[in-house]
Amino acid sequence: MERYVHGYSTEEAMRLKDQAATLAHLLHGDLRYPEGATVLEAGCGTGCQTVFLAANNPATQFVSTDVSPSSLATARQAVLARGLTNVQLRQGDIFDLPAGQSFDHIFVCFVLEHLADPAGALRCLRQVLKKDGTITVIEGDHGSFYCHPETLEARRAVDCLVRLQARLGGDALIGRRLYPLLVEAGFRQPEVEPRPVYVDGSRPQLIEGFSRNTFIAMVRGVREQALAHGLIDAPTWDQGIRDLENAARPDGAFCYTFFKAVARGAE
Amino acid sequence: MERYVHGYSTEEAMRLKDQAATLAHLLHGDLRYPEGATVLEAGCGTGCQTVFLAANNPATQFVSTDVSPSSLATARQAVLARGLTNVQLRQGDIFDLPAGQSFDHIFVCFVLEHLADPAGALRCLRQVLKKDGTITVIEGDHGSFYCHPETLEARRAVDCLVRLQARLGGDALIGRRLYPLLVEAGFRQPEVEPRPVYVDGSRPQLIEGFSRNTFIAMVRGVREQALAHGLIDAPTWDQGIRDLENAARPDGAFCYTFFKAVARGAE
Repeated sequence: MERYVHGYSTEEAMRLKDQAATLAHLLHGDLRYPEGATVLEAGCGTGCQTVFLAANNPATQFVSTDVSPSSLATARQAVLARGLTNVQLRQGDIFDLPAGQSFDHIFVCFVLEHLADPAGALRCLRQVLKKDGTITVIEGDHGSFYCHPETLEARRAVDCLVRLQARLGGDALIGRRLYPLLVEAGFRQPEVEPRPVYVDGSRPQLIEGFSRNTFIAMVRGVREQALAHGLIDAPTWDQGIRDLENAARPDGAFCYTFFKAVARGAE
Repeated sequence: MERYVHGYSTEEAMRLKDQAATLAHLLHGDLRYPEGATVLEAGCGTGCQTVFLAANNPATQFVSTDVSPSSLATARQAVLARGLTNVQLRQGDIFDLPAGQSFDHIFVCFVLEHLADPAGALRCLRQVLKKDGTITVIEGDHGSFYCHPETLEARRAVDCLVRLQARLGGDALIGRRLYPLLVEAGFRQPEVEPRPVYVDGSRPQLIEGFSRNTFIAMVRGVREQALAHGLIDAPTWDQGIRDLENAARPDGAFCYTFFKAVARGAE
């Protein structure tokens, strides 16, 4: 199954865990839901965000869904390992949500990038959101990446992710589109903010946690797919990876921007 | 004189004024110097930042220098028009600062991008900074720009700025390099933060003030230079500008990141 550019191997699961630990604080460490609220986390994957959300909001009930049974099994282990009792994991498709149920809030993180019809997915989610409730959407944007020193080969390796995502029907540049997508899907008052990750020599933990173990690891992960699709040749790819590693040093710099949107349900 | 990519025509002076009004708050609206301190503003140009700095810090003395007599004349008018009495304007080159004088703090905004030897300029500035003083450096990075919808033509038009700046000996991608440059120049404890400008349909004032009157106006300003240097053909350029304008609409999005660095003088 080659539906996603990333997310389905064991190595990938470890990368996602590292990524979550570094990024959860930046992306939704400040997110607090009311006591007693019920929150739908649509597309929870292996539970990377789930465990942080549930731990940060112990008096909130989470219903976390994903289409993949194997991802859900990993998520279940993560939830159990942390002794969290406020998470219900359910198999389910965003485009086929149970009718009649509605949620106080919705949380969607790193999901829309994979979908051919993100506005349609948002419309489906709007149907199950109470009108005073909020939807929080967090996505990256690979076009926001740049580094120093930067080379053509480094750029081309990163572009492979964008082109692979596009071939699989997704959009790795979706972060910049959150506002028009939420408007199109009928949500009210969308507010979008960039959440930049900037890494230089004064931030060795981010060099490790973000530049190397999140970003470069993610790029590395699509080598075989990129070569198989003929998007790049092996020498260029390998040089690109070396150049990215070169920028992830104390005298280099790495920049990437995530986008976080919050909007309200329909009247 | 084609030393700078931008900054020397009357239209450009108006653009810079609009830009300053929109950006000064974002970039250094929070900058407060101690009462009685003397601050060197190196490369003040037409005084766009000067007047904001001086108004925000009325008990601080500013010595604002520039190499260009005509820019200084414009700056003088701006300072007089606002009745500011805490600004001394002086002609001078960063690489030829008066020996023996030292300053409590230094401020440099949109200057290093134009210089062939930014680290050398910073070393010169370090010589006139008291050891407990700070240097504040603010620069853009045109490689940080992206928009929605984005086209190849829009990208190519923006790339012309980067390539022109490079041909003139500067670096339009300097924002990402501030940390290594400050380290190289011998400053202590540089702290760099990205200051992103994100524009969508919920921010009509930024569509006007930033996307149209700052960014697109700046790109437009180099049309003849770009064509004369053979960097692009006219139809591609014109399409690129139309595409940028198309992204500066309520259903589009614009992203750009400035960088602000603060570092301390040498021991």
